[in-house]
Amino acid sequence: MTLSPLAPPSFPDLPKIVGVSLATAASGTRYHGRDDLLLITLAPKSSVAGLFTKSDTAAAPVCWSRTIAKTGKAIAIITNAGNANAFTGRLGQAAVRDIATNLADKLKCDASEIMIASTGVIGEPLDATALTPYLSNLVENQTASWQSAANAILTTDTFAKGAYATCVIAGKKITLCGIAKGSGMIAPNMATMLGYIATDAALPASVLKHCLHEANDKSFNAITVDSDTSTNDSVFLMASGSAANQPITDPHDPLLDDFRTALGALTRDLAIQIVRDGEGATKLITIDVKGANNNKAARQIGLTIANSPLVKTAIAGEDANWGRIVMAIGKLGIGISTDDISIDIGGHAVARAGMRIPDFDETPIAHHMTGQTVDIGVTVGSGDGSTRVWTCDLTHGYISINADYRS
Amino acid sequence: MTLSPLAPPSFPDLPKIVGVSLATAASGTRYHGRDDLLLITLAPKSSVAGLFTKSDTAAAPVCWSRTIAKTGKAIAIITNAGNANAFTGRLGQAAVRDIATNLADKLKCDASEIMIASTGVIGEPLDATALTPYLSNLVENQTASWQSAANAILTTDTFAKGAYATCVIAGKKITLCGIAKGSGMIAPNMATMLGYIATDAALPASVLKHCLHEANDKSFNAITVDSDTSTNDSVFLMASGSAANQPITDPHDPLLDDFRTALGALTRDLAIQIVRDGEGATKLITIDVKGANNNKAARQIGLTIANSPLVKTAIAGEDANWGRIVMAIGKLGIGISTDDISIDIGGHAVARAGMRIPDFDETPIAHHMTGQTVDIGVTVGSGDGSTRVWTCDLTHGYISINADYRS
Repeated sequence: MTLSPLAPPSFPDLPKIVGVSLATAASGTRYHGRDDLLLITLAPKSSVAGLFTKSDTAAAPVCWSRTIAKTGKAIAIITNAGNANAFTGRLGQAAVRDIATNLADKLKCDASEIMIASTGVIGEPLDATALTPYLSNLVENQTASWQSAANAILTTDTFAKGAYATCVIAGKKITLCGIAKGSGMIAPNMATMLGYIATDAALPASVLKHCLHEANDKSFNAITVDSDTSTNDSVFLMASGSAANQPITDPHDPLLDDFRTALGALTRDLAIQIVRDGEGATKLITIDVKGANNNKAARQIGLTIANSPLVKTAIAGEDANWGRIVMAIGKLGIGISTDDISIDIGGHAVARAGMRIPDFDETPIAHHMTGQTVDIGVTVGSGDGSTRVWTCDLTHGYISINADYRS
Repeated sequence: MTLSPLAPPSFPDLPKIVGVSLATAASGTRYHGRDDLLLITLAPKSSVAGLFTKSDTAAAPVCWSRTIAKTGKAIAIITNAGNANAFTGRLGQAAVRDIATNLADKLKCDASEIMIASTGVIGEPLDATALTPYLSNLVENQTASWQSAANAILTTDTFAKGAYATCVIAGKKITLCGIAKGSGMIAPNMATMLGYIATDAALPASVLKHCLHEANDKSFNAITVDSDTSTNDSVFLMASGSAANQPITDPHDPLLDDFRTALGALTRDLAIQIVRDGEGATKLITIDVKGANNNKAARQIGLTIANSPLVKTAIAGEDANWGRIVMAIGKLGIGISTDDISIDIGGHAVARAGMRIPDFDETPIAHHMTGQTVDIGVTVGSGDGSTRVWTCDLTHGYISINADYRS
């Protein structure tokens, strides 16, 4: 796989989180010469939160982990890459149970404390017996780095994705580390992809859940590569408590402000990395919508533009085709008046009040279109609703990747 | 433009409809060496019906023609290809008025009896004065064939689309002829593309409207190329009355059964031709959905599959990737149970009750995938809802066409 031209220069130097251990292994079930299993184990008093795909055809591991996330407690998360264990019926459920039971035995905990995430091909049976032989090794060698962990969960991704942030809760320094995978089948609906964020903060599951929801809404839920939502999307937030900060029970406690800001920045960083690794992507597109009736309408408008194949191919061709942006807004059918639409590209005015500006000069916009980042601003009225979403262009690379790879 | 590999062998031999005249001309405003203007004129007592895009950003000619279609009366329809006159504000409205007024003057009728349709680039001002010099010539030389007419309205299409049918109303032989254009920005929402169907039947506008709605629902509204809905979609049904059949005022009159069947077959033929000419298409995909709660749900399921970039690229790659079909159903989020999903490809069972069949043999399915037509059957439960929709694959050709052409 050729490295995305939008890839960051290097994987960031993620620090260790006390109370969170990582291990990776290579099962060889689908990929060769690389790890495809990741075990994350948590100190006994850790709390967790999880967000999962809203797909009606959610995979077996999603159904399993969703139940455990509700308890706010887990000892480990095991992830396999290469087989999504989705649309696998009772055989898929049995595989999940087998893996959890086997791993719980080795970790001396209950299977109900093991969460599972899977990514890869949909609809092929997952053979648990091909993975269980590697569990002992994973449990005995929990010394992997975040970078190794991020590499072990990739599928069509061309680079490992990581980010970290620090903040302060009531005078204690807090660290957050996150990794994610995702490249195709990326469209926001709750969570979209696999994401794992660990922190040493001491926070109850109820607070984690609130913070994760809030951050997710402006990060993973604000990106799209191809409008297709995975059966296996899962994002986990784990807090080991080793920072021993003052207890906090109210997610709106001002003492949490800095943590929420840090979590927001970290999840946004990871989300944008996923778009930068969008299948075939050559341009990162940021779409700002203003003047909608409310934030939900703004989000719909942002995503209808971000998902339009004609908008995305135009940008691939470095064509500032505002007509296709108008088309995308129109097809949504939520009652936008054409005369209220204004469009900016690269900070330059293109259209005001429903038509191209009279003294339009395409030169600076054409120059903007040749860059790796394209900024689109759309105003659709005088309402208070606004949003920012991210997507990438649609290129020959996307076709090449997806006409050949069974994912 | 390379001819679509799915093109029919030739343009059908469409008969003349008494009371309907055709004229074409080349304005040279965008295309060179081809006609880009089409005038259809109707005998004085003709009735008409029209269906138009539901886009919020409908073009100026759509807004104009929609009003006239409501009256059920028109003398002419003038069409220009190359500029959609969409997102052109009051200048676009003025251009429409100028063209209608000029043409009405030459046809000795009122501007309110002239319908207009436009197709092409969105957001560029349309200069009416570049078209009006050709109106006299169009009015004076109304001898064009249906094939010339079909050619004059094309944009990114690679072949002209025509179809005809005959039927009987109360003992009188009736003829219907239709032409259409469409290749990209094709997604069903009311009507999708430009379509013109003429008949010599004597039928009031109210009956025409009912019949057009009914036929449209199972033809133009059941196709998608790229999920993007045009600002200019318009379909017209015109009845000159020259067959002088017995008057009919009730659309459910059994005397109309044969006409409705013929109209249904003709519109389905044209709709499938549009998919066959889908930008970059190499495969015609038919998706049958059964067992949904109702027909509307079945339609949503059919279209979520038909619009999924991952399903369409898999088919381009001749990969019977049922996992992506499951993903597409799941992302819709209308409450389908995974365990209720069964999938057939090319008439061969792939999955039953939420998982791949145990004795799965991909050989005959792999063979089916190599053909120019791919048939997908999906059952999602035991309800009465069913539908059939058509789409095409997503290929490098689509990217090439749309990264270069400003449409």
